[in-house]
Amino acid sequence: MLNVGVIGIGAMGMGVAKSLLRAGFAVRVRDIRAEAEDEARAAGAVVCASAAGLAAGCDVLISVVVDSAQTDDALFGEEGAAVTLGAGGIVMLCSTVAPDYAAALAQRLAARGLAMLDAPVSGGPARALAGTLSMMLAGSDSALAYCAPVLQAVADRRFIISSRPGDGSRAKIVNNMLAGVNLAAACEAMALGIRLGLDATTLHDVICASSGGSWMFGDRMPRVLEGDYTPRAALKILTKDLSLLLEAAASVECPVELAQAAHRAYTDAVARGLGDEDDAALLKRYAVLAGVALPGT
Amino acid sequence: MLNVGVIGIGAMGMGVAKSLLRAGFAVRVRDIRAEAEDEARAAGAVVCASAAGLAAGCDVLISVVVDSAQTDDALFGEEGAAVTLGAGGIVMLCSTVAPDYAAALAQRLAARGLAMLDAPVSGGPARALAGTLSMMLAGSDSALAYCAPVLQAVADRRFIISSRPGDGSRAKIVNNMLAGVNLAAACEAMALGIRLGLDATTLHDVICASSGGSWMFGDRMPRVLEGDYTPRAALKILTKDLSLLLEAAASVECPVELAQAAHRAYTDAVARGLGDEDDAALLKRYAVLAGVALPGT
Repeated sequence: MLNVGVIGIGAMGMGVAKSLLRAGFAVRVRDIRAEAEDEARAAGAVVCASAAGLAAGCDVLISVVVDSAQTDDALFGEEGAAVTLGAGGIVMLCSTVAPDYAAALAQRLAARGLAMLDAPVSGGPARALAGTLSMMLAGSDSALAYCAPVLQAVADRRFIISSRPGDGSRAKIVNNMLAGVNLAAACEAMALGIRLGLDATTLHDVICASSGGSWMFGDRMPRVLEGDYTPRAALKILTKDLSLLLEAAASVECPVELAQAAHRAYTDAVARGLGDEDDAALLKRYAVLAGVALPGT
Repeated sequence: MLNVGVIGIGAMGMGVAKSLLRAGFAVRVRDIRAEAEDEARAAGAVVCASAAGLAAGCDVLISVVVDSAQTDDALFGEEGAAVTLGAGGIVMLCSTVAPDYAAALAQRLAARGLAMLDAPVSGGPARALAGTLSMMLAGSDSALAYCAPVLQAVADRRFIISSRPGDGSRAKIVNNMLAGVNLAAACEAMALGIRLGLDATTLHDVICASSGGSWMFGDRMPRVLEGDYTPRAALKILTKDLSLLLEAAASVECPVELAQAAHRAYTDAVARGLGDEDDAALLKRYAVLAGVALPGT
């Protein structure tokens, strides 16, 4: 049985750690928040005082921190994990980061004899806890085979994108670009429909059963109808993902007009103070512009 | 059993007429194309030489012509149907038209003692032929009740939007706006993904199973993967629908940034000569901009 470390036990990392514990793995965790460490300890994890200490006892190190800056710190900062992870160890990068960063990270780790799996996840905290995440995987066949039991414990949909780290992140941000645009379009349509005098629930039901439907529409608009903006995924996260997408598109000189238009809507919503609300609250920004009242308000 | 007339037996109207014949209705048809009339006659319809002649024997007149200009001509032009349709007759308007036009048409018909059902449809020719269209209905309770057997014969999903003609068309164009934006976003994402080096089929499979999925993505992108652009719905149709949406949004001074960005992409694609191809061919426009080759080309 592999020894697994999880760095970053927030909403997603905690679910990953608990899924691994449930599957019988010895799990070591590291976070900067004591309450998260307490929760993981109670679930059976070994809490480590540093990333370096955690990595010393690991075969597979899963990084589920927020962004590339935290990833770099966890791996290469003071008491970073890259020094102590044994040769042949594998870093599984689950954060959503710039694809070029992920590709470069794989090379930096390879220079130390470490392999990397580019392994961004999708599905949210509830599916992380259930061990039923989606994963977009890019890495060598040997790394994939070595990590197979770990992958099976945390994700039930595992897409092998390619053998090149970076491609998992590319697939992830392209998917999230679509999620972001489709949600913005859903909000634009709902606000306009209400402005045109249509009943929000009726319009919702029609679209869910028609050609205008999308995964984001079906998942987020029911929250709007109930006036429930409790954050499951904060609006600022899709905003960040769209920024990463624009950066990647610019790097290959590819025009992305809709992604840019959507990104403007998200950044405007963040500027209006909606960044920490559920991303369904993007509709609040459209409701102001359309001059309409939303259900439940 | 009601006597039903169908004016405009193109891809959609022909399916409506045949579904009614199958359900046992006496069906009268009118079209400007002899080959369509021949096909309907062979299926059991009575072919009429004018809209006026058709309407003289009808309880319910279904208009499935292309746009509001053809609608006006069929109803109020020389030998138009509105003069001969008996008092109490009902006009069911299935074309996608400007909502304000539909609302005004109901008033013009009411002045002649005729009722109108605003009844735009969705689902395409195959579902029209199967009698399983979606319908977005707006009209009085009495008109809806009178037409119930007709509606049941042609549509298996019938959404009552409101009692005000115009609202059916409003729901339709808001739905189609989402269909149009989601398809444009799907094309933008696929072109970018290929430009970033991802395999088109793999990216398709990931998105279909993830948060970026949409009805349009799942329906149209498989055509792209097969290089099949045989027109089921021509690209110019969604272009027209987006124009109607922009007009309706402008009439209530509601900003629709994504719909505008998508409309620019569609009009650009039409300018490139893609208007009569399947709307999945919108991706060809994005492929040129991204400098990538599409599958099957």
